[in-house]
Amino acid sequence: MVNISVNSAQLSAEIEQLAQFSDAPAPAVTRVLWTPRDMEVRAFFKNLCAEAGLEVRQDALGNIFARLEGTEPNLPAVATGSHTDAIPHSGRFDGVVGVLGGLEAFRALQKSGFRPRRALELLMFTSEEPTRFGLGCLGSRAMSGALSPQKLRDLHDADGISFDTAREIGGCEGELESVRLNPGCYHAFIELHIEQGPLLEAAQVPIGVVSAIAAPATLRLTIEGEGGHAGARLMPKRRDALLAGAELALEVEKAALSTGSIDTVATTGFFQIHPGAVNSIPSRAQLEIDVRDIQGERRDAVVSQIRAAWDEISARRNVAGTLETLNADPPATCADSIVAAAQNAAKNLGLPFQNMVSRAYHDALFMARICPTGMIFIPSKDGISHRPDEWSSPEEIARGVEVLALSLAEWAA
Amino acid sequence: MVNISVNSAQLSAEIEQLAQFSDAPAPAVTRVLWTPRDMEVRAFFKNLCAEAGLEVRQDALGNIFARLEGTEPNLPAVATGSHTDAIPHSGRFDGVVGVLGGLEAFRALQKSGFRPRRALELLMFTSEEPTRFGLGCLGSRAMSGALSPQKLRDLHDADGISFDTAREIGGCEGELESVRLNPGCYHAFIELHIEQGPLLEAAQVPIGVVSAIAAPATLRLTIEGEGGHAGARLMPKRRDALLAGAELALEVEKAALSTGSIDTVATTGFFQIHPGAVNSIPSRAQLEIDVRDIQGERRDAVVSQIRAAWDEISARRNVAGTLETLNADPPATCADSIVAAAQNAAKNLGLPFQNMVSRAYHDALFMARICPTGMIFIPSKDGISHRPDEWSSPEEIARGVEVLALSLAEWAA
Repeated sequence: MVNISVNSAQLSAEIEQLAQFSDAPAPAVTRVLWTPRDMEVRAFFKNLCAEAGLEVRQDALGNIFARLEGTEPNLPAVATGSHTDAIPHSGRFDGVVGVLGGLEAFRALQKSGFRPRRALELLMFTSEEPTRFGLGCLGSRAMSGALSPQKLRDLHDADGISFDTAREIGGCEGELESVRLNPGCYHAFIELHIEQGPLLEAAQVPIGVVSAIAAPATLRLTIEGEGGHAGARLMPKRRDALLAGAELALEVEKAALSTGSIDTVATTGFFQIHPGAVNSIPSRAQLEIDVRDIQGERRDAVVSQIRAAWDEISARRNVAGTLETLNADPPATCADSIVAAAQNAAKNLGLPFQNMVSRAYHDALFMARICPTGMIFIPSKDGISHRPDEWSSPEEIARGVEVLALSLAEWAA
Repeated sequence: MVNISVNSAQLSAEIEQLAQFSDAPAPAVTRVLWTPRDMEVRAFFKNLCAEAGLEVRQDALGNIFARLEGTEPNLPAVATGSHTDAIPHSGRFDGVVGVLGGLEAFRALQKSGFRPRRALELLMFTSEEPTRFGLGCLGSRAMSGALSPQKLRDLHDADGISFDTAREIGGCEGELESVRLNPGCYHAFIELHIEQGPLLEAAQVPIGVVSAIAAPATLRLTIEGEGGHAGARLMPKRRDALLAGAELALEVEKAALSTGSIDTVATTGFFQIHPGAVNSIPSRAQLEIDVRDIQGERRDAVVSQIRAAWDEISARRNVAGTLETLNADPPATCADSIVAAAQNAAKNLGLPFQNMVSRAYHDALFMARICPTGMIFIPSKDGISHRPDEWSSPEEIARGVEVLALSLAEWAA
């Protein structure tokens, strides 16, 4: 067995440094695709990788690849990685632990004298979060072929900026057609991530080994009602877009609860009205809805229930608006062989582990389409994530990095 | 009787010019207190008044007074006026007809050779709309003594800018204590305004004479729930601020409908959630609610019903938040003598008129506290206002100006 020694102090310092690149005051983190903060993190990460002696390249979508060469460079590499973009007012660990932790795993392996047969590659994926273009996992989605270059080019952000313009500002060069990878191009992909749920902490278990990843269906709705003066327009004549949206948001909750399963969740996370003045009837409302389950069929039944509710609400309130499906990816199952490797690594390190599913989705969801894929979880304090108080301790992170390093070593040997 | 000849072409051209000072693309108008657009309109208006030979002054709150001197300058003047600020994405006539129409009334009186005994004053009130500081009628409210200098100074806008800072940027000088006027300082106040409702158009009557003005109660609520990852946080553990707000917005509608009176209206016109990302549970929601009636007691009963609903919702959903009353002014009754003067003016001009109440509120609501006050309405196409398609024809506006001019002449003679 490789003898792993993780430099937890250095890793914590790097996580701290990375958290400074934020458009929200600390401890909150906001870091949106191809904003100046995102560009700063990209430079920071490339520099750290170069310092570690890795060979760094970037594809046409801004996905970054940092390679530790193997003794047989022509064999498919073993990959790890995650993302560093962060939704508004979120925390410092989501994604970052898998990127900087992956780098520390490589450094620890180098330090141990381990010389991999297969190359190791550390990936920093572009825009795992859907903040800017309403669609998450842009990088891994395109790599896996689940998102065509044309669909990427059709995207616009909330300010009307086209994907191509944003990509140019983001310093990406080359044809989007070149981003897609062939199945088998990687021998394995293993992502280290915070749990974003309460189970590991509650069980006082340091390592989660993921067997399945839930996937969201994302819906978007623009409601067109009729505005007017809040004092002068009589109640029976109104076609208030906010009220129609409020009813739908409550139906979204009801639909999730109706399955009776704890694994079904549904959220209206985006809700914006127009014009937004106290004395003006809302004429327009925009909603984005996220529905998840580890069972694809049950999730799709919830989506159907939401659609039926909207048909009824929109007819009764005489407002217009079509529920658009932004994405509805199937859940993914992790490869048994990777699950076993992670379990073995934990055992060899004397670390208790727990098998679990991932309710949040990850770049691993798409990597699973092109190579055997697995995930390693570490505890999240109070199960919290996507919030400024998201927290995993340096010790918890170091244990995850150890398990990741040993798992990578097993596959790369 | 004074012989009035309104220059409708010039007035229409001036309304068109004023509409260009907007932060929204035409035909929409957005003009918020002490923004560059508001400042441009102030300069434009002062210049027009000076061209008409009026003496222009401004108080410490930015209320503008343009005076046509009378033969007995020491008598209390007769006043008219309205506002030119505009809520986001609204129209070009609300308020503006009373300001530029008032100016045209003065010019028509000058042209007719009428020499008033009492001075005439044209007022442009600061911030009739509540857009920036969450409270409407800042100018008339302070003039009437209904709003103290200290309460003004305590105001902050949504960006956290203090009232004093904004006022300085707005070029206002002098002590706020000097803004308040003594009761009796004006002999009368008569405001010309678009109806903002459908009654005059439906009845094909050109003039409305207002007998009472409804007043809003304005409520503000910040809901504090708990955020988190939309995929990972289970439904039963959630304290979703959006869902609590959605329930309340629907209760606001229900409360208004429960009175059974067409004169009760209630609107949630502002609704903002935080952080506002599709995969993040809303941790905070901000609502502003507007409740109106021409009967103060009935309106206050609706407010009580909304409060009771919030107590139930916030307890059941385990979220925090206090319903704050921003204002709850009593409705106003117009002075019989002014109502009679407006009716006489219409009769003398051969114009049909209709007595009515104002469901929208106006600076006249506060002027009624310090002098005999009345309002003259002209038709609004389809009853629409606070929207880009707000519309009153040049002929309709000209008729309103004629009635205003004759009413002013009767009181100033």
